[in-house]
Amino acid sequence: MTITKPLTDLDIAYGAALKPIAEIAEQVNIPDDALEQYGRYKGKIDPKKIPGEPYGKVVLVTATNPTPAGEGKSTVTIGLADALKQLNQKVMVALREPSLGPVFGIKGGATGGGYAQVLPMEEINLHFNGDFHAITTANNLISAVIDNHIHQGNQLNIDPRRIIWKRVLDMNDRALRKVVVGLGGPTQGVPREDGFDITVASEIMAVFCLATSIEDLKERLSKMLIGYTYDRQPVFVRDLGIEGALTLILKEAFKPNIVQSIEGTPALVHGGPFANIAHGCNSLIATQTARKLADIVVTEAGFGADLGAEKFLNIKARKGEFHPDAVVIVTTIRALKMHGGAEKSELAKENIEALSNGIPNLARHIETVRNFGIEPVVALNRFITDTEQEIQTLLNWAKLNNVRIARTNVWEEGGKGGMDLAKQVLEVLDEPKQFAPLYELSDSIEQKITTIVQKVYGGIGVEFSNQAKKQLKQIKENGWDQLPICMAKTQYSLSDDPTLIGRPIGFTITVREIIPKLGAGFLVCITGDIMTMPGLPKAPAALRMDVDEKGNAIGLF
Amino acid sequence: MTITKPLTDLDIAYGAALKPIAEIAEQVNIPDDALEQYGRYKGKIDPKKIPGEPYGKVVLVTATNPTPAGEGKSTVTIGLADALKQLNQKVMVALREPSLGPVFGIKGGATGGGYAQVLPMEEINLHFNGDFHAITTANNLISAVIDNHIHQGNQLNIDPRRIIWKRVLDMNDRALRKVVVGLGGPTQGVPREDGFDITVASEIMAVFCLATSIEDLKERLSKMLIGYTYDRQPVFVRDLGIEGALTLILKEAFKPNIVQSIEGTPALVHGGPFANIAHGCNSLIATQTARKLADIVVTEAGFGADLGAEKFLNIKARKGEFHPDAVVIVTTIRALKMHGGAEKSELAKENIEALSNGIPNLARHIETVRNFGIEPVVALNRFITDTEQEIQTLLNWAKLNNVRIARTNVWEEGGKGGMDLAKQVLEVLDEPKQFAPLYELSDSIEQKITTIVQKVYGGIGVEFSNQAKKQLKQIKENGWDQLPICMAKTQYSLSDDPTLIGRPIGFTITVREIIPKLGAGFLVCITGDIMTMPGLPKAPAALRMDVDEKGNAIGLF
Repeated sequence: MTITKPLTDLDIAYGAALKPIAEIAEQVNIPDDALEQYGRYKGKIDPKKIPGEPYGKVVLVTATNPTPAGEGKSTVTIGLADALKQLNQKVMVALREPSLGPVFGIKGGATGGGYAQVLPMEEINLHFNGDFHAITTANNLISAVIDNHIHQGNQLNIDPRRIIWKRVLDMNDRALRKVVVGLGGPTQGVPREDGFDITVASEIMAVFCLATSIEDLKERLSKMLIGYTYDRQPVFVRDLGIEGALTLILKEAFKPNIVQSIEGTPALVHGGPFANIAHGCNSLIATQTARKLADIVVTEAGFGADLGAEKFLNIKARKGEFHPDAVVIVTTIRALKMHGGAEKSELAKENIEALSNGIPNLARHIETVRNFGIEPVVALNRFITDTEQEIQTLLNWAKLNNVRIARTNVWEEGGKGGMDLAKQVLEVLDEPKQFAPLYELSDSIEQKITTIVQKVYGGIGVEFSNQAKKQLKQIKENGWDQLPICMAKTQYSLSDDPTLIGRPIGFTITVREIIPKLGAGFLVCITGDIMTMPGLPKAPAALRMDVDEKGNAIGLF
Repeated sequence: MTITKPLTDLDIAYGAALKPIAEIAEQVNIPDDALEQYGRYKGKIDPKKIPGEPYGKVVLVTATNPTPAGEGKSTVTIGLADALKQLNQKVMVALREPSLGPVFGIKGGATGGGYAQVLPMEEINLHFNGDFHAITTANNLISAVIDNHIHQGNQLNIDPRRIIWKRVLDMNDRALRKVVVGLGGPTQGVPREDGFDITVASEIMAVFCLATSIEDLKERLSKMLIGYTYDRQPVFVRDLGIEGALTLILKEAFKPNIVQSIEGTPALVHGGPFANIAHGCNSLIATQTARKLADIVVTEAGFGADLGAEKFLNIKARKGEFHPDAVVIVTTIRALKMHGGAEKSELAKENIEALSNGIPNLARHIETVRNFGIEPVVALNRFITDTEQEIQTLLNWAKLNNVRIARTNVWEEGGKGGMDLAKQVLEVLDEPKQFAPLYELSDSIEQKITTIVQKVYGGIGVEFSNQAKKQLKQIKENGWDQLPICMAKTQYSLSDDPTLIGRPIGFTITVREIIPKLGAGFLVCITGDIMTMPGLPKAPAALRMDVDEKGNAIGLF
């Protein structure tokens, strides 16, 4: 008897035959002089050297609210593109870059899984082409210049107690959440409270992902708010005079990265802002570059449709002046059973009742997408323990409610497992649609938030803490109220209470704090404890990592 | 009348016609599959894919003690290699990578200057291929894991007051020198004092630059000392169990970077440890890889011969089991005049007396190199204000003392300006020599330091502070006394007093502290205030930086 160990994502990734990246680039006619190779299988594309205008249709992949069961949104995104390629479509994928910090913390990839992965996964998960390191450097140069400015005489009159710009590291490091810097006497700077966020939470990451050009990047960097003076006047990066240096630090990183899926579909993997305190999608420059090169661009947004898709549609699509022509909502039987009250340990058992109770979570996200004027396709991502009766229950519900649904099995089968989904997506792409963002920028802040709560979360309305009310007033006085809203809410619930899974109703959302992100160009509305610097677990994934004698990675997912 | 602005190094760099990096690699027969391109003009070489044994002869370039006048050591290193190439030699350069932090602080390049530069200088000075970012990440993962370990129950019994491992950033940021981390209550970690060094001061940088293979890298990382338990037992990285993860983080960075000089000479630019608290040379793997590829490898060591060359010869060459076949000592008339008492503002005036008073500094370094069994060649690096009488004074002194000397003018002329030096170096390479390190590893620590003080600095002997005496005892008890010595001394003087320029005599060196660097494999002996985290000046260089409409750098030197 032979005992076979199940293949890990890393095993599958190393087993794949990669094509030279120049060959991948050729598939979508990237001009030779626009491609810069980074090693054999990675590259960067200079967007200035890609001719033409963006024309490709966009397929946005989103999901039901995440559960510990896992939904496989990135996996479906990649598998769908591979399926479209098998159907002879000129297609590209656009994805977020993974953050290095969590890689050392808790097992879990961000480059798809099984036979629907982007490769080389170990390099994409580690450093990649250095973009996040460049963002870390730019972010921390601002901090160094702020502290140096104060130390050297503080001509700008910056109040050290009112600096809102924090340092960052791409590391899960809870001990850096709250620190005191500048200790050690008069030659070591001015003591003050500070803290470190993880790099993906830096406003520079959001700026990087919404900028339309290097010039726009610089303009946005210059507008970032870093704190206030002793007489409460805002201080911006442009007051420090370092927007040029920041742009210089970021100029190579700003070129989208090109890699390939296991099936050789070209993928742009670029930028990765948080989906709570930021908008949670890959860079706009990558999406638009892909739209110049391919007829169809499959992309994803972070967390569930209430966070990622809402922001993709109200923030990113608005800034980019485009809209998706299809939206896919990924879900699993397991996830819906959890939303219906099943315990994680019981998910292997058939449970029609829990499934039925969980379906309303999916229903809510379908309504949301319809509210934007787009008819979604549900991707039911197969898991080995799904029973035929469970699957039929969901399919029947979909039929009854005129919901398009397709079964996917891309983890095991790659593009072949996404064929049904791809065909339905192609149908939707050809249908006429009337997309519109849910609110106008000229609406009041209160109105914009209320619209999101009612039309996306399915709640009643919004309340503001006293602090938020004060900030609301200040924001209006400063004339910053014409910006879109970036809700920072728990991803686990449609409400602001992470324990309210399924489809809660009758709730209100409480905005505790409103943070103007003037470079990114949105107002972050904090509705709960949002973790901007994760910690490591008791036994971090780092303990299992190594390099084998061939120089290959071990223990990376 | 036309007013012409003098060309900057950046102007000259952008004016140069670069060859594709594959063409550069071909010059020294680097196998196709060993070269990984990073953009068009940079690459990494996989040392495992370079056949054969190191055979090339090594030319070490060092200098008199640095002065504010500047000596041009990197410039001469590059220009000498270009001259050797013009003489049809199969030659490579091996240099240190510049640190990003100082780039934003004070104008001053680390990639040569004028027509003796390595290119693309703006990319080498910014991020390069991400090596330092990888080292930053590895260093800070150790810190995160230490703090997490203590937070999660502290099974290893680590005393938070006795952690010697500090965090790092590749940034000049004085406010991070002394910090308190872990504030904010029980869920945010355990409060303790900490500090940040600049990345080049991380022990990982020294380890990276002395490791002979990826396996040796891992072994050295595992041996790094991070602190002590409550009962004063040493705690190592291996006790944390993350040497595999650290190796994984560093595995791509560990491949030497290949670039080119303006004249197309292949250059490996890799690693860059401090020359005070570390040994100050490019990576051993880069030197040895270059020695497999070229007949002659021209390389440099940090600061003057008392620091860089001493450590190159006693630490790096010993570990690498090779020795240089020629040593070049770079000096300038201006620098010698400063050593002889001239003010910086007076350097444009002829001053034979100051020059004569400064020559003993050069003489001391010549004796040092001779003490190692090698006959040096002095490179007199031309400056526009040098008078013919000054030059003749030095040449006459050299003739009288049987010192080989060559005039160089590489900043203006590139390789052509290094022709005389190259010819003399070729003569020396062919002479027989009897190299030996100055001390045996089995000598006592006191003996090893005394040897360096007497045979390199020209001093009398060494004294130890009470703290150093205590550490000496502890190091012997732990059996760590068989390691080479890494002196952390001011670079400005042969003594430990930075104001004693020229050639001081009759002095003793005071060792204040001895820090065992068990991964790097040396004992750092601190003899003064060594700055391991620089600060920014009042008007940082960052203020002048920008990106032009073509996407080129502005204001970078």
